[in-house]
Amino acid sequence: MNEFELIQNYFNWPLSDPTIELGIGDDAGIFDLDSGYQLVTTTDTLSEGVHFFKDTTPEDIAYKSLAVNLSDIAAMGATAKYFTLAITLPKLDENWLEHFSKSLKKASKKYNVSLIGGDTTRGALNITITMMGIVEKSKAIKRSGAMNGDNIYVSGDIGDAALCLKKINEAEKPHKAEMLRLNKPIPRLELGIAINGIASSCVDISDGLEQDLSHIIKASRVGAMIDVQKLPLSQSMANYIADNDDWSLVVCGGDDYELCFTAPESLHSEIMKIAKICKIRVTKIGVINDSKKLKIKGYDGHSKSYQHF
Amino acid sequence: MNEFELIQNYFNWPLSDPTIELGIGDDAGIFDLDSGYQLVTTTDTLSEGVHFFKDTTPEDIAYKSLAVNLSDIAAMGATAKYFTLAITLPKLDENWLEHFSKSLKKASKKYNVSLIGGDTTRGALNITITMMGIVEKSKAIKRSGAMNGDNIYVSGDIGDAALCLKKINEAEKPHKAEMLRLNKPIPRLELGIAINGIASSCVDISDGLEQDLSHIIKASRVGAMIDVQKLPLSQSMANYIADNDDWSLVVCGGDDYELCFTAPESLHSEIMKIAKICKIRVTKIGVINDSKKLKIKGYDGHSKSYQHF
Repeated sequence: MNEFELIQNYFNWPLSDPTIELGIGDDAGIFDLDSGYQLVTTTDTLSEGVHFFKDTTPEDIAYKSLAVNLSDIAAMGATAKYFTLAITLPKLDENWLEHFSKSLKKASKKYNVSLIGGDTTRGALNITITMMGIVEKSKAIKRSGAMNGDNIYVSGDIGDAALCLKKINEAEKPHKAEMLRLNKPIPRLELGIAINGIASSCVDISDGLEQDLSHIIKASRVGAMIDVQKLPLSQSMANYIADNDDWSLVVCGGDDYELCFTAPESLHSEIMKIAKICKIRVTKIGVINDSKKLKIKGYDGHSKSYQHF
Repeated sequence: MNEFELIQNYFNWPLSDPTIELGIGDDAGIFDLDSGYQLVTTTDTLSEGVHFFKDTTPEDIAYKSLAVNLSDIAAMGATAKYFTLAITLPKLDENWLEHFSKSLKKASKKYNVSLIGGDTTRGALNITITMMGIVEKSKAIKRSGAMNGDNIYVSGDIGDAALCLKKINEAEKPHKAEMLRLNKPIPRLELGIAINGIASSCVDISDGLEQDLSHIIKASRVGAMIDVQKLPLSQSMANYIADNDDWSLVVCGGDDYELCFTAPESLHSEIMKIAKICKIRVTKIGVINDSKKLKIKGYDGHSKSYQHF
């Protein structure tokens, strides 16, 4: 099978989005953009041994590759639309590809995004997706808009993916529900769009709350005070903390793909309403100040947030 | 150094394109698209041991990663504009990164494209660039437009990258000029834009003329007859063929990144004029017919075009 056949067989599923003039199968994909909109583009790689284990299923790899990119689009308050897939495989394993492509197709249908281009290469397993979304001109939620006095919020519960990873690394079997938090993160697209126009800044928590909130602070030239006692915890995490008095997984654990965002206190009830509509827990965890520093009340550990190198 | 610092240090150079609202440093890049235009998107990966050798310099890897993507945009007759970079590195080698980023910056300046997003990951060396270009609505040159009777053209000389690779694999030292053909392919952006509105179909030769022309034939539901005696050869290649009576490198050799395109005979003189203006050799190598097959006069070898697996 050559690359062309591989793409035809596994990745050339029909697309229904009328803005796409040309999908997979030419030198490049082509799509339209309505006037008054901007294109929002992000890229994320999943690499074996770093983002997933040798025994992670192709279904989970496909889903997560898409989800982590969707999460970036969610953090911009944009609507995800198109993506390209660059996949590097050690060998042509048709069974693996079959499962990978089925899962990718299912996830792309679920999140209403279209695969418009791709490349396949031989080498160590590596999946890079580039996701494109659209947003009304000048309406994207940047990291740089947080203001002194704004509340700081996070969606969902945090730290569970890190807890699951810790269990695996310590040869303890995680519960199924915990594995889902690691392998099947839910991109908060609906929430991202709902807080567009309300949130002053937003980031998705991929490398750990402490590191990702620091990006907001730096970009916005502000400081922040958060309180570990206010961080939203799952029951598993609450148990873990009660047993170990260790907040580092919640404060620094990566792979949550929840949104961390800021908004003025005057919009607090609006945000709680949105959370209800989106059926997502949204928790106020602290306040932006002008200190230029991130202070975490109740946590005196050094940064253990995920470092790529 | 964390990922954020790595990107700040090596990839966050100033951008001058006024259509970019947000470059590297947020969850995603943002840009505008003028109305009446479409976005053209392609992605290509370079992987160590497949697309380059262990001793290939970071400068050459950076240049080629960009060039192969630009070549796809050229083949669509589009104008290259924005790109994202996903780079997977075995370790944090600041010297390597310094050279890689300098070369990428230089090449992106040369071809007038802007880096608007990126991701860095640890793992086997792997570089994926996603390139976005713009084209007037419905004006992109697709693979599917070739018509019975159209002439077939290629730009430049072909087969030289394959000849260079063959020498390296046989432990023969290639000339500097030959190494350039392998490591520094020139994306035919100017030519691609110039033949937009004239060419009926176009593809870039990345996997070998025989395979890439076959894509045009298949997409256009036509056939083709080309003649090896008409293929444009460098002096090195002419010598090699005279000595070895082996046309396979020219017919099937990959990595040329020249354009192969079709156009009606009535536009032949127009095309020769364009070639002169672009200062690129453009050669008529055959004619499209309705046979649904590719016949290569003077070449009876089986396909040896590059197979990704």
